[in-house]
Amino acid sequence: MTNIAMIEAAAARLKGHVRRTPLLSSPFLDEIAGRRLFLKAENLQHTGSFKFRGGWAAVSALLPEARAKGVIAFSSGNHAQGVAFAAQAHGVPAVIVMPADAPRLKIDNTRAMGAEVVLYDRAGGESREAAAAPYVQGRGLTLIKPYDEPEVIAGQGTTGLEIAEQAAEVGVSTADVLVCCGGGGLATGIALALEDRAPGLRVRPAEPKGFDDMARSLASGQAESNPSQTGSICDAILTPAPGTLSLPVLSRLAGPGLVISDDEALEAMALAFKHLKVVLEPGGAVSFAAALFRKDQIAGDAVIAVATGGNVDADVYAEALRRFG
Amino acid sequence: MTNIAMIEAAAARLKGHVRRTPLLSSPFLDEIAGRRLFLKAENLQHTGSFKFRGGWAAVSALLPEARAKGVIAFSSGNHAQGVAFAAQAHGVPAVIVMPADAPRLKIDNTRAMGAEVVLYDRAGGESREAAAAPYVQGRGLTLIKPYDEPEVIAGQGTTGLEIAEQAAEVGVSTADVLVCCGGGGLATGIALALEDRAPGLRVRPAEPKGFDDMARSLASGQAESNPSQTGSICDAILTPAPGTLSLPVLSRLAGPGLVISDDEALEAMALAFKHLKVVLEPGGAVSFAAALFRKDQIAGDAVIAVATGGNVDADVYAEALRRFG
Repeated sequence: MTNIAMIEAAAARLKGHVRRTPLLSSPFLDEIAGRRLFLKAENLQHTGSFKFRGGWAAVSALLPEARAKGVIAFSSGNHAQGVAFAAQAHGVPAVIVMPADAPRLKIDNTRAMGAEVVLYDRAGGESREAAAAPYVQGRGLTLIKPYDEPEVIAGQGTTGLEIAEQAAEVGVSTADVLVCCGGGGLATGIALALEDRAPGLRVRPAEPKGFDDMARSLASGQAESNPSQTGSICDAILTPAPGTLSLPVLSRLAGPGLVISDDEALEAMALAFKHLKVVLEPGGAVSFAAALFRKDQIAGDAVIAVATGGNVDADVYAEALRRFG
Repeated sequence: MTNIAMIEAAAARLKGHVRRTPLLSSPFLDEIAGRRLFLKAENLQHTGSFKFRGGWAAVSALLPEARAKGVIAFSSGNHAQGVAFAAQAHGVPAVIVMPADAPRLKIDNTRAMGAEVVLYDRAGGESREAAAAPYVQGRGLTLIKPYDEPEVIAGQGTTGLEIAEQAAEVGVSTADVLVCCGGGGLATGIALALEDRAPGLRVRPAEPKGFDDMARSLASGQAESNPSQTGSICDAILTPAPGTLSLPVLSRLAGPGLVISDDEALEAMALAFKHLKVVLEPGGAVSFAAALFRKDQIAGDAVIAVATGGNVDADVYAEALRRFG
C-alpha cells in the first residue's frame, strides 16, 4: 500500500512536469464561509484535474517492457485525460474506455492526446470490460485503475505535500481539508501526506447527495455502496463504493464526510467564477460547496477545499452562471 | 521615473501579500498558436487583476500623514478594486470615482472593499473630476493615478520579475511577452523588469481595434490618441492615449503593437475556459487572443501572454461561451 516514501518518490518523478497549483482566497468567500477559506486549485493542473498526478505517477513507474506494450484505463473522463497525457509524454500506447455519455469535452480531449478511445453504453447496461475486450486481447496492456492502485494514490498524494507547504505559508496549521471524493484515491493520498507533513490538517471527504458512500462507510465502519450510478451532474465522482485501499486509510485518518446537493455545487461554481476567476466542474466544486454551505459542520478559523477539476461543458457552465451568477 | 530598484522595493513591500500567479499552458493551445504558449494568469491575482500590485505598491509607499488623510482613484474598475483592497488592508480611507456604466461586478466589489464609490455619467459627458469634487474638497486625498505614476508602474513591474523567473523554469529565454495595454503602466513595468532580468524577453502591447493608440504611437514615434473612448467590450483598457511615462520606455524597449477584435477577445475567453480553466474578462484576454490569432506577426518558438484580469459579468461570459465555447 501507498506510504509517504512512495508519495515522495512520485513527487520526484513529477517534478518539472506537474504544476504547483495555487491556493486561492477572497475576502468575499471568507465572509460566506464564516472563516478563512482557501481553495487548492487542482482544476488548474495539466489536463484540468488532479488526475494528471496519478496518471503520471503510474505511467512513470512502469518497467520498460510494460511501457512498450501500453496501458489501459476505464474512466468517465478526468482519469482518462490524466493517463492519456502521461502516456503520450512517455511514448506509451494508451487505450481508454469511456462511457458514451461522458462530457464531450473529456472525450474529445482524451482522443486529442493520442489515446485510442473505446466508448460503451453505460446507461444501456453494456459492460465496459465487454466493450474493451476486442481492443485489448493479446496486447498485454497494463491496467491503471483510477483509485484502487498504490502508485496512483501516491501521485494524488503529492497534492497533500503541496497543501502542507502552502498552508504553512498562509499561517494555517490546524484545519479541515475538504476533498471531493469518488473512490477516494485523492483523499487517501492527501491524508497520508498530511499525516507525515502537517498532522494538524485533517482530510474530510465531500460528496454529492445520493453518492455519499464514503461518508456512510466512515460512519458505519464498513464499506457501503450507492443505490445508483447515475443521477447527479457531478459526473467525475459517481463511483459505486469506496476503494478497498481508500477506506482503511480514511477510517484511520479522515473526519466525517460532508454531503452537498447538485444545486449547491452549481452555486459554488458561480462563486468561484465571480470571486476566484477559476472554472470548476460540478464534481470538482463539491468540496468548495461544503466549505461555503456546511459551515456549521466545520470547526476552526480556517478551512481548505481541494477543487479537483474544471472539465465542464460550456452549456452546463452557462446554466450555473444563469441560475447563480 | 520607475527603475529596477523601485520595482525590487515594491516587490519587497508586496511580499507575503501578492499572489505569485501561475504560468499556464496546454498542448491544445500550443497547436493553435503554432508555438509554445504560456499564459501568465494575473486574473488570479487578488481582486481579479494585476492592478492589486500597483495599488498596493502605491498605498504602501505613502507617508503616515498622507495615509491618515486617504487616497482617491479614478477607474472603470480594476484599478478601483486594487486601490480599494490595498487601502482597506492598510487602514487608509479611499474614494473611488467610477463611470456608472462600469461592469456591475467591479462597482459592487469596490464598494464591498470599504471604499466610498462616486459614480459619474461617462456616456452623458459628465466630467469625473466635477463628479468627485464635492467628496474631495478639503480632505487632502492623495491621487493614485492608474498608470502615469512611478510607484504604480513599479508595482506592476513586479509581474515582470515573476515572468523572468517562470520563463527560465520552463526553459524560455527568448520570446515576445504580449501585454494587454490601456495606458501602458503594466507593459512599462514589465519591460523595465525584463530589461534587467531577462533581456531576451521583449514586451509587445496588445490592444483592441479602435483603441490601438499605443501601437500607433510606437509606429509613429509620437503620442497618438484614440478617436473614441467607448465602443469596445474591452472596458478595462479603453484609455484615450498612452501615458506620458509609458511611451518613452516602451519606445525604447517594446516591439510593435498587436491589435485584435472584440470577437477575437471573446473567442480567446472561451479557449481559456476550455483549456486552462481560468476566467478572463475581454480586456484581460486581448494579449492571449493576439498570441492565438496573430501568429504570423510573432516570431520564435515560444510566446508569453499576460492575462490581466477576470472581472467579467456573468452574462457577457455566458455569451462568449455560447458563441465560441
